[in-house]
Amino acid sequence: MDEHALRELFERVSNGELSIEKALSRMRAAPAGEDLGDAVIDHHRELRQGHPEVIYGPGKTSAQTVKLARAIHKVSKRFLVTRTDPAQARALKRAFPKAVHDPVGRTVLALSARSAKKTGILIVSGGTSDQPVVEETRATCRYLGFAAEVWCDVGVAGVHRLLTRVEALQEARVVIAVAGMEGALASVVAGLVAAPVVAVPTSVGYGASFGGIAPLLSMLNSCAANVCCVNIDDGFGAAVVASAICR
Amino acid sequence: MDEHALRELFERVSNGELSIEKALSRMRAAPAGEDLGDAVIDHHRELRQGHPEVIYGPGKTSAQTVKLARAIHKVSKRFLVTRTDPAQARALKRAFPKAVHDPVGRTVLALSARSAKKTGILIVSGGTSDQPVVEETRATCRYLGFAAEVWCDVGVAGVHRLLTRVEALQEARVVIAVAGMEGALASVVAGLVAAPVVAVPTSVGYGASFGGIAPLLSMLNSCAANVCCVNIDDGFGAAVVASAICR
Amino acid sequence: MDEHALRELFERVSNGELSIEKALSRMRAAPAGEDLGDAVIDHHRELRQGHPEVIYGPGKTSAQTVKLARAIHKVSKRFLVTRTDPAQARALKRAFPKAVHDPVGRTVLALSARSAKKTGILIVSGGTSDQPVVEETRATCRYLGFAAEVWCDVGVAGVHRLLTRVEALQEARVVIAVAGMEGALASVVAGLVAAPVVAVPTSVGYGASFGGIAPLLSMLNSCAANVCCVNIDDGFGAAVVASAICR
Amino acid sequence: MDEHALRELFERVSNGELSIEKALSRMRAAPAGEDLGDAVIDHHRELRQGHPEVIYGPGKTSAQTVKLARAIHKVSKRFLVTRTDPAQARALKRAFPKAVHDPVGRTVLALSARSAKKTGILIVSGGTSDQPVVEETRATCRYLGFAAEVWCDVGVAGVHRLLTRVEALQEARVVIAVAGMEGALASVVAGLVAAPVVAVPTSVGYGASFGGIAPLLSMLNSCAANVCCVNIDDGFGAAVVASAICR
Amino acid sequence: MDEHALRELFERVSNGELSIEKALSRMRAAPAGEDLGDAVIDHHRELRQGHPEVIYGPGKTSAQTVKLARAIHKVSKRFLVTRTDPAQARALKRAFPKAVHDPVGRTVLALSARSAKKTGILIVSGGTSDQPVVEETRATCRYLGFAAEVWCDVGVAGVHRLLTRVEALQEARVVIAVAGMEGALASVVAGLVAAPVVAVPTSVGYGASFGGIAPLLSMLNSCAANVCCVNIDDGFGAAVVASAICR
Amino acid sequence: MDEHALRELFERVSNGELSIEKALSRMRAAPAGEDLGDAVIDHHRELRQGHPEVIYGPGKTSAQTVKLARAIHKVSKRFLVTRTDPAQARALKRAFPKAVHDPVGRTVLALSARSAKKTGILIVSGGTSDQPVVEETRATCRYLGFAAEVWCDVGVAGVHRLLTRVEALQEARVVIAVAGMEGALASVVAGLVAAPVVAVPTSVGYGASFGGIAPLLSMLNSCAANVCCVNIDDGFGAAVVASAICR
Amino acid sequence: MDEHALRELFERVSNGELSIEKALSRMRAAPAGEDLGDAVIDHHRELRQGHPEVIYGPGKTSAQTVKLARAIHKVSKRFLVTRTDPAQARALKRAFPKAVHDPVGRTVLALSARSAKKTGILIVSGGTSDQPVVEETRATCRYLGFAAEVWCDVGVAGVHRLLTRVEALQEARVVIAVAGMEGALASVVAGLVAAPVVAVPTSVGYGASFGGIAPLLSMLNSCAANVCCVNIDDGFGAAVVASAICR
Amino acid sequence: MDEHALRELFERVSNGELSIEKALSRMRAAPAGEDLGDAVIDHHRELRQGHPEVIYGPGKTSAQTVKLARAIHKVSKRFLVTRTDPAQARALKRAFPKAVHDPVGRTVLALSARSAKKTGILIVSGGTSDQPVVEETRATCRYLGFAAEVWCDVGVAGVHRLLTRVEALQEARVVIAVAGMEGALASVVAGLVAAPVVAVPTSVGYGASFGGIAPLLSMLNSCAANVCCVNIDDGFGAAVVASAICR
Repeated sequence: MDEHALRELFERVSNGELSIEKALSRMRAAPAGEDLGDAVIDHHRELRQGHPEVIYGPGKTSAQTVKLARAIHKVSKRFLVTRTDPAQARALKRAFPKAVHDPVGRTVLALSARSAKKTGILIVSGGTSDQPVVEETRATCRYLGFAAEVWCDVGVAGVHRLLTRVEALQEARVVIAVAGMEGALASVVAGLVAAPVVAVPTSVGYGASFGGIAPLLSMLNSCAANVCCVNIDDGFGAAVVASAICR
Repeated sequence: MDEHALRELFERVSNGELSIEKALSRMRAAPAGEDLGDAVIDHHRELRQGHPEVIYGPGKTSAQTVKLARAIHKVSKRFLVTRTDPAQARALKRAFPKAVHDPVGRTVLALSARSAKKTGILIVSGGTSDQPVVEETRATCRYLGFAAEVWCDVGVAGVHRLLTRVEALQEARVVIAVAGMEGALASVVAGLVAAPVVAVPTSVGYGASFGGIAPLLSMLNSCAANVCCVNIDDGFGAAVVASAICR
Repeated sequence: MDEHALRELFERVSNGELSIEKALSRMRAAPAGEDLGDAVIDHHRELRQGHPEVIYGPGKTSAQTVKLARAIHKVSKRFLVTRTDPAQARALKRAFPKAVHDPVGRTVLALSARSAKKTGILIVSGGTSDQPVVEETRATCRYLGFAAEVWCDVGVAGVHRLLTRVEALQEARVVIAVAGMEGALASVVAGLVAAPVVAVPTSVGYGASFGGIAPLLSMLNSCAANVCCVNIDDGFGAAVVASAICR
Repeated sequence: MDEHALRELFERVSNGELSIEKALSRMRAAPAGEDLGDAVIDHHRELRQGHPEVIYGPGKTSAQTVKLARAIHKVSKRFLVTRTDPAQARALKRAFPKAVHDPVGRTVLALSARSAKKTGILIVSGGTSDQPVVEETRATCRYLGFAAEVWCDVGVAGVHRLLTRVEALQEARVVIAVAGMEGALASVVAGLVAAPVVAVPTSVGYGASFGGIAPLLSMLNSCAANVCCVNIDDGFGAAVVASAICR
Repeated sequence: MDEHALRELFERVSNGELSIEKALSRMRAAPAGEDLGDAVIDHHRELRQGHPEVIYGPGKTSAQTVKLARAIHKVSKRFLVTRTDPAQARALKRAFPKAVHDPVGRTVLALSARSAKKTGILIVSGGTSDQPVVEETRATCRYLGFAAEVWCDVGVAGVHRLLTRVEALQEARVVIAVAGMEGALASVVAGLVAAPVVAVPTSVGYGASFGGIAPLLSMLNSCAANVCCVNIDDGFGAAVVASAICR
Repeated sequence: MDEHALRELFERVSNGELSIEKALSRMRAAPAGEDLGDAVIDHHRELRQGHPEVIYGPGKTSAQTVKLARAIHKVSKRFLVTRTDPAQARALKRAFPKAVHDPVGRTVLALSARSAKKTGILIVSGGTSDQPVVEETRATCRYLGFAAEVWCDVGVAGVHRLLTRVEALQEARVVIAVAGMEGALASVVAGLVAAPVVAVPTSVGYGASFGGIAPLLSMLNSCAANVCCVNIDDGFGAAVVASAICR
Repeated sequence: MDEHALRELFERVSNGELSIEKALSRMRAAPAGEDLGDAVIDHHRELRQGHPEVIYGPGKTSAQTVKLARAIHKVSKRFLVTRTDPAQARALKRAFPKAVHDPVGRTVLALSARSAKKTGILIVSGGTSDQPVVEETRATCRYLGFAAEVWCDVGVAGVHRLLTRVEALQEARVVIAVAGMEGALASVVAGLVAAPVVAVPTSVGYGASFGGIAPLLSMLNSCAANVCCVNIDDGFGAAVVASAICR
Repeated sequence: MDEHALRELFERVSNGELSIEKALSRMRAAPAGEDLGDAVIDHHRELRQGHPEVIYGPGKTSAQTVKLARAIHKVSKRFLVTRTDPAQARALKRAFPKAVHDPVGRTVLALSARSAKKTGILIVSGGTSDQPVVEETRATCRYLGFAAEVWCDVGVAGVHRLLTRVEALQEARVVIAVAGMEGALASVVAGLVAAPVVAVPTSVGYGASFGGIAPLLSMLNSCAANVCCVNIDDGFGAAVVASAICR
């Protein structure tokens, strides 16, 4: 129940239109969201956080995914599904022919016409194997209204690839550093800029990378202090944080 | 060697004042910082990142700490030492009587007169045991020019303590959530605001808290996506990230 | 050998019907259960714990599963198989056409007519991906005689979804909180009720969730003390504990 | 703001005694608890959960501890401080001469006259080294109104010590099993009773016990399903859960 | 080079049949085993340890497996292959029609006629899911000349199943305790016997069992001291240790 | 209640000296051991396992330690206390002047005259820093009737130190291999002998030794199969296992 | 931009051919490598490190792999792809018929005629299951100009297999020790030679080997100090380090 | 028994001075080293590895340390003790007044006059807190005959500090990279040179550094392949490896 509904409730009590008992019970019963049976859509999220819920694919059937996308699209005129499998993607494309499926980033994205293209977000990545995370980040940024710039394959084993572009780096409002293996990219980038760096460890690597623990710990212990970190392979989260910073 | 020095170098080569060989060798030899023997102060950091180096106390003698503080203060008219032990604090107070020592947050802080008091940072914490981290965060914010607001002891076991202040929460430009034990505060706060939330897991707890691993994992896996995370007990890092966001 | 058999033994020794040597050897040889070759059914469990053994599917052939179900059903007129694979489910349905197979919760359940429908157990879950665990919990409760109430998708990223139903929450005799990711649901729920909360961490999540370690640690470190925890994805265990509490 | 206050608010709005604006602002400002500067006492907890807040000693000065104890005692006529150090204990004894300090369990407990002595909780422990956790559990039970029965040193290396007392074991409403090393006590006890078993892993052991991880994992994986688990050494939590079960 | 060959070398040097230089070089070049190209069979192992090498299946082609089995069988008249996959098993059966393939324990075993059937080893297991490890243990014992006795499904959730057979338990020369989940079987058995107990943790379980870490830690921390432990699922190792004890 | 007492009970029931009800109640009440208040001494252990209980020092006061030692000594004429601190050792020496305190192995040992000196146990260790564990092992062996042979400082960095003594090594009935760092000693020794090898990982090392995890894992994964493992630094357990093997 | 290009730039500025502004902008824009869209080839690597980039197969399509191989081959007349899958291998063979595909080591290697065959590298491995890592190491050595010698299956369970070849071992310039399970091979080899030993832990093993953590920790804690370690299964890295040592 | 002694043995057998039986027994009895009671000095190490044993201080008394130092010094005219405590250092200085004690690196070093000063080793470190490890490395290098060059405080947060000295970096025969926190220094350095980089992770850091696990994993996963790694804080090991490389 939002500010507006609460105010209306008080007005109706004040007017005598509503008894106190009924007001109390209505407050308790105010719908938290749209109940779809096995999911409850939090339409208030757009009011609270500026963007509608995003649908996380894994563990949902194609039918459930389409049902959720429809419900969100009806209210918000856009939707984003992350970590889709091919069956979900096909079902979504059938239902929303204009939606865009990116098989690398595993996203399906539908946007309304009014989607502004704000700037300020720069995504840098360590290697080509990080591309799926980079694309999930880029698609989420677009969903949130940002056209992020992307520099791929600028890892620290050839640090001159970064250094020749220092000025452009320093112009970003926020940098998202995507890297697996030892994740040193975040520290090196952060040492070169005054902007906040959102670090995304990826599960790229093998052996003692332990599915991304190595770059995660690296990024949490960065000797450059303007680094904060999201979950392993969490391009979605990095985009949400970066957008919140740029708002 | 900064932009200015590089331009001057080219001008002197252009004027014939400097031979090409000498220019090459000068570029290689450009001092990276002020060499104090066992430490090299990176005075360029203020240019690159907007604030001078911060001195991390552990593993340094009192004499080394004072020497570093003097070198930074001479150039930048302020300094911050974090994680000080009592002996370092006493030595710093003798050398800089106006510096402020906070024994809870374990910081010694010296500021110049011109320190502006910018706002927008809100620090919330789960319990009174998190106070040392809260105070380190607050002092670092002040060093970086921000007067952070602080709400203590609003942990999720009594979630109404947060909910009664939702509007104030929603006005912050960035929220720093400091919590130990299960670290759920970050998720609950992030679900209520559109701003980015910088989460600081603390080592408060025992047993399966594993020195802060429990809240760290909790914060990295937050179901609210506008959360990013710094190291365990890293109030300093959270303040740097939050200031970079607010700049 | 139960109280009754022991008493009879003493009576027969007292009557001289049985020599002491034979009584001693009989005590040693008392059958612990029904021996099916590669499994020993503990029929005494119903006497000791109020319900017959439950069959755990993984690592058993379809034939073994049906054999065990028959043996238990003959004595107890009901059975429950958890974590069934499709082949086991088909074989069980052929043998017991009235049994109910739930493919989401991966259970096959056969009940006798006399199954009372006791109440008091409330299951709350964080998201739709937790549904398999929720359904395993619900089916196990039913097997144990309880018709649990279920609220899905009330995770803490939208904490108002819980708060609007606080009174109903407070009426439960025991709450089972099922959540993956950061598992904060258990703490928030527990802070709102006086009842015990049985927390079930799920393996829903990725990266630093580490297959459910993140919510497990979160729940073990809950700042609300009326929380106890079962194994990751262990809906079965949570239902057994909750039923034992409600008895 | 509780049910009563909320009703009064509606009545005053209904009566015209209070403007809608003021009602709205009063709801936002309703005090969450008693603010002591660096701590906020949650006096509503007794209403919500049946017992006042418990004070966790570590990280608090003796003065802070006494201040909190006074604030709680003023309202609730009792208090409990856990994990006290000797200085806190002495300060509390000076302020509350009737309070009882248990140096083994590291608790200070003050009770009102009306403390009922309810029964139903049985604490069993594996060895004498688990005594501090046993005593913390016992004191917390007493604070919550329960006179728990205690059996020490009945570990599974001599399983007959338990088996000779099976009937008494089976009469408990809830059993709290406290054990370090391999923590097998919880499984063996749970296999013998129908009641819920609250398992407390302790940090007793060395080497591959890893500070209590070994019994924690053991208890989470118990082959007897009526076991739930609290944090390592968390006698306090076990007592709160057991009391909630017995209510 | 064994004692005999060394003695002959000295004799030939003493006789003048061999120059010192040649003796030195021959010592360096003494073959360590039969070189099959990508493997070197250690035929001396039977002399040193009383049994020929055992072939570990994983990572070998069917052809390599058969080649190794032939080489060992030619010298020792028996062989054992563990962890075979179906293709290896078929190839071995074609080459050695009398060899026995056990698909549960994943072994292929060929024995000579003279295989004595020594006794003294008792294998006990917690549940039917531990059967593959039990059968690997049994087959390895047979290869090493022991006819082990096996009791399945005597886990501690029904501890009376063990207690009714205590005398037989106490007659074993060595007990091998195979258990997954919390692995408490080893402690309970060891508390009842004077013989050494070789504990085999299995990967049976899920969630916080972590692939067998839970029972492994449990067994390493057993409060009964006559327990020693082998690797997770290592039925082969347990049989080798038990046989070495019984020799 | 042992075999003898049980037989007597049946005889008295058979004679009519005892009613059935009384026999039942007596069986339930049979004392499990000597109850000293906070400890229960398991005097039956000597009957079951061939040696009286051993007292583990940590977490006990000097007075408790002496009380337990007296109770055991009265029945068994010997005792062993492990991991003693200096205060416990002094108190034990005052009470038992003939007891032997070994400050390196941290044991206090009192033996009766009849202690036979059986042989067959060989202890080998990797380096001088493993000496405390070696001495705990040696003292426990002596308590159990064995005069173990000890070879120190024969680690694998100089493998010839072992190889020159291979024959003596091969004569041992059981070898206890004590090693920290990478714990390779167990594998190398086990490859040279047919006897079982009881491996004791020690916490000697630093960094990635992780308090003994490195040698523990090494020993559990030994490529020589006649190795079994006890807990980190658990010289006591190794001696109990080795004695059980040699009996 | 390399030394040569930099010198030319200064000369052109000195000659007046280039304005200072343009020189500055050219320095910023100097290409870091050949940009292929989703990858940037670092052709400077051969200048800096003596060999062209190596292509890591996983996460790349066959088409991407061939494109990268072509780009490197055009400049450097050779290439190496590691961890190839069969589809990549087929595509590479079609494009480069002379390239050699090794399905065991999962490499595709193309060499120019001038490839010198330098010596000094000896690879020793513990067992036949380590062969894939051995072959990756061997192929990488060849790519870098070295014809490594290889001894397979000389693990420490039969330490005499190594000892008979000590002199040859001592002649190596650098030894690469490849071993899974407990990884003791590295320590034993290093104790016998003066050369540096590059240790490669492999994921061969099961249970408490934890995918190679056991040998990794073993090698990091080697009691022989002339051991350094690369990642689990990282034959490529070991070859690069060994080649750098031999240069 | 070395080559020389073995040859002499054969000659005496050849001459008939020694019977075959006696030669055999002498080979078995050849002393492995100098036996000091609780330690066996491996004087052969200098022959095998080019330098005498180094004494590791922890766990040794001052008297033991001096005894070992004397035994080594008598044969080799030099010694090195690492990780000394102050008492050991004082005792060593009394016994060897010319020995040098470095309290930062915790070493005591005695050298003979003939110590050559070879070059080629460059030590770089991330920050001043790494100084103890740097000094242990430097002292060990000196003991092994190398005068290492040292660059302190060139961490990647200010990567220009390294880049201005690239040429000097590229001249090193081997680089030892010492770094805590995220350990990115090793990757950045290795990307700039063709020499092998020996990486030493240090325990400098807090929280999710986990005592050096973060930089250890970082270094094992370096995206620059010419990196190998030693144990956490293992300056000694890095120096031994680097010296072996430079020999």
